Amino acid sequence: MALEKLDGLELPAAADMHVHLRDGAMTELVVPTIRKGGVNMVFVMPNLVPPVTTVRHALEYQRRLQELEPKVTFLMSLYLHSSITPEVIRKAKHAGITGVKSYPHGVTTHSDQGVMSYEEFYPVFEEMEREDMVLNLHGELPPSAGEDITVLSAEEAFLPTFLDLHRRFPKLRIILEHCTSAAAITAVKTCGPTVAATITVHHLFMIVDDWAGDPHCFCKPVAKLPSDRRALLKAAVSGDSRFFLGTDSAPHPASSKRADKYAAGVFTQPHAVGLVVDAFEQAIGTGVLTAEDVTKEKLEGFMCSNGRAFYGVKDDRNERIVLRQSGATIDEILRSKDGSVEVVPFKRGKMTWGVEWQ
Amino acid sequence: MALEKLDGLELPAAADMHVHLRDGAMTELVVPTIRKGGVNMVFVMPNLVPPVTTVRHALEYQRRLQELEPKVTFLMSLYLHSSITPEVIRKAKHAGITGVKSYPHGVTTHSDQGVMSYEEFYPVFEEMEREDMVLNLHGELPPSAGEDITVLSAEEAFLPTFLDLHRRFPKLRIILEHCTSAAAITAVKTCGPTVAATITVHHLFMIVDDWAGDPHCFCKPVAKLPSDRRALLKAAVSGDSRFFLGTDSAPHPASSKRADKYAAGVFTQPHAVGLVVDAFEQAIGTGVLTAEDVTKEKLEGFMCSNGRAFYGVKDDRNERIVLRQSGATIDEILRSKDGSVEVVPFKRGKMTWGVEWQ
Repeated sequence: MALEKLDGLELPAAADMHVHLRDGAMTELVVPTIRKGGVNMVFVMPNLVPPVTTVRHALEYQRRLQELEPKVTFLMSLYLHSSITPEVIRKAKHAGITGVKSYPHGVTTHSDQGVMSYEEFYPVFEEMEREDMVLNLHGELPPSAGEDITVLSAEEAFLPTFLDLHRRFPKLRIILEHCTSAAAITAVKTCGPTVAATITVHHLFMIVDDWAGDPHCFCKPVAKLPSDRRALLKAAVSGDSRFFLGTDSAPHPASSKRADKYAAGVFTQPHAVGLVVDAFEQAIGTGVLTAEDVTKEKLEGFMCSNGRAFYGVKDDRNERIVLRQSGATIDEILRSKDGSVEVVPFKRGKMTWGVEWQ
Repeated sequence: MALEKLDGLELPAAADMHVHLRDGAMTELVVPTIRKGGVNMVFVMPNLVPPVTTVRHALEYQRRLQELEPKVTFLMSLYLHSSITPEVIRKAKHAGITGVKSYPHGVTTHSDQGVMSYEEFYPVFEEMEREDMVLNLHGELPPSAGEDITVLSAEEAFLPTFLDLHRRFPKLRIILEHCTSAAAITAVKTCGPTVAATITVHHLFMIVDDWAGDPHCFCKPVAKLPSDRRALLKAAVSGDSRFFLGTDSAPHPASSKRADKYAAGVFTQPHAVGLVVDAFEQAIGTGVLTAEDVTKEKLEGFMCSNGRAFYGVKDDRNERIVLRQSGATIDEILRSKDGSVEVVPFKRGKMTWGVEWQ
């Protein structure tokens, strides 16, 4: 194995800065998998039904999550929406809410109440800048934006909007979430230190061919070309602190994946850290990376410290994990105790690197 | 409706120069849908299991098809394979077999016995040139051909191979099957009159966004960008006799579409002609075509006469069809009488233009 040098490596607990934990029985199923994946801090997306648009809803949601797993820190977000005013931002900041997530209208799961135009939110962004809150951008233009906008071009087509927001609000901390393209990586690099990007683990593995014909590999933004995957892999091990892990782990009921029109989302939560190591190993195997690219420092930066540093948060528990090459077999399916919810994980049935808690 | 002028239009029966009729119960289910779609002549693909590599197998298959539907002409093909020799070509020609289909190894349904290298078949192509048989090319490079070959680039990456075959065998009649890209259309136009291309009806409708998340819209080659769709639509109504209909209608059991790793193929057979008119109407609605582009002559060329002219065959029955705007609702699902086979048609449940036999 290309990365056997990492067997037994001790690292700080990982932070996963982009997770979907859903509602109800699904939440109860997926929250306990966070620590299994080597993670003790997550940034929680607000695209519930209805979306999390009030401080009260966010705090209730956080309380419910915390009850399910007291040993994870849940950083909470609001869903950018016409009801979000500068006043709401001030309250949110005071209540300890970390960010505001912007979904362009109609691009992914539960985005039907998303943003049609950013201009109306400029006063909100100004307030966020003052309050030092993070703007989390789902960076895709919707298909309605132009006849040549496709799932393949939607992210690159969004980059001018992203760069314009950074230019207008240079002190606003912005995260371009789940980057999937070389163009997005390049754009982020041109920005100042207030801008960062999350990279998922599944986009380190996949290209368009992987989701062509496989519902469990289909997500938004879609995985793109080999050249895009190479750019993501290189960014992840570049040592540039603006790139860090946000798995965008997005569980869907198996029945909505094995369907005539199926949901977008890849579920990686239970093996978040192990899969990152697997992805680097695959990339070494194909010559995209070398074993020398994947050092303790790079891994720690990408999975553990860069995200926390950008958000300005620490691991108060000061926990450590250990990587194990003789890892785990990924479950074929996860079932809730009452059997009402089933989720198919990414790379089901495959071996992955394991994680032990110190 | 943009094309109401076509309501009641009489045309020759259509020819569908690329169909998959499968084996067994599936054959019994789909063969009766050919005439329903306004078609009385089809070119039959040989990718059965095992593939049709002998004259005897092809003739047995033809007899079975003919028994199921005596009022359709079945033009037969062999599967290009190491067992196909110049001798086999001479026998095939003598037996009335029309073409030889080349599948690159591993690119689509039942292509695991496909071609690894074309050079070994040069003597076969020479014999086909002499015997005036048609070479039907599945025009995609397999992923193994290069690290940047994807389902999106595989067709364009094949074009040099296609052009090289035409250059080496200028008198060999070649059809670049199911073109999906502007690049393929351009390449075909640069060739001499021995080269033609089929265009499916589903590629006149779809782009990548349509199969992202929908197994019933997923096929190989995959639908690509809006610019590619525009090129296909314009070629179809260009009046250039080298472009004609081959639906590539490819039925799969519903269970292999609603699956964790699902089959490539779109089933359009029962409404082949109606869907072509629908596609042109959709293109007029989006401004890609005008109503003036879609004339009786263009429709007749694309659906009825260009294909027959290229293959040098006539409709001995001299049948006529009539287009009806007040068409039919496409079935949600087709079931064999014993219920053992189910197929989901393209645009299930939608309205389509209808066809009446004169």
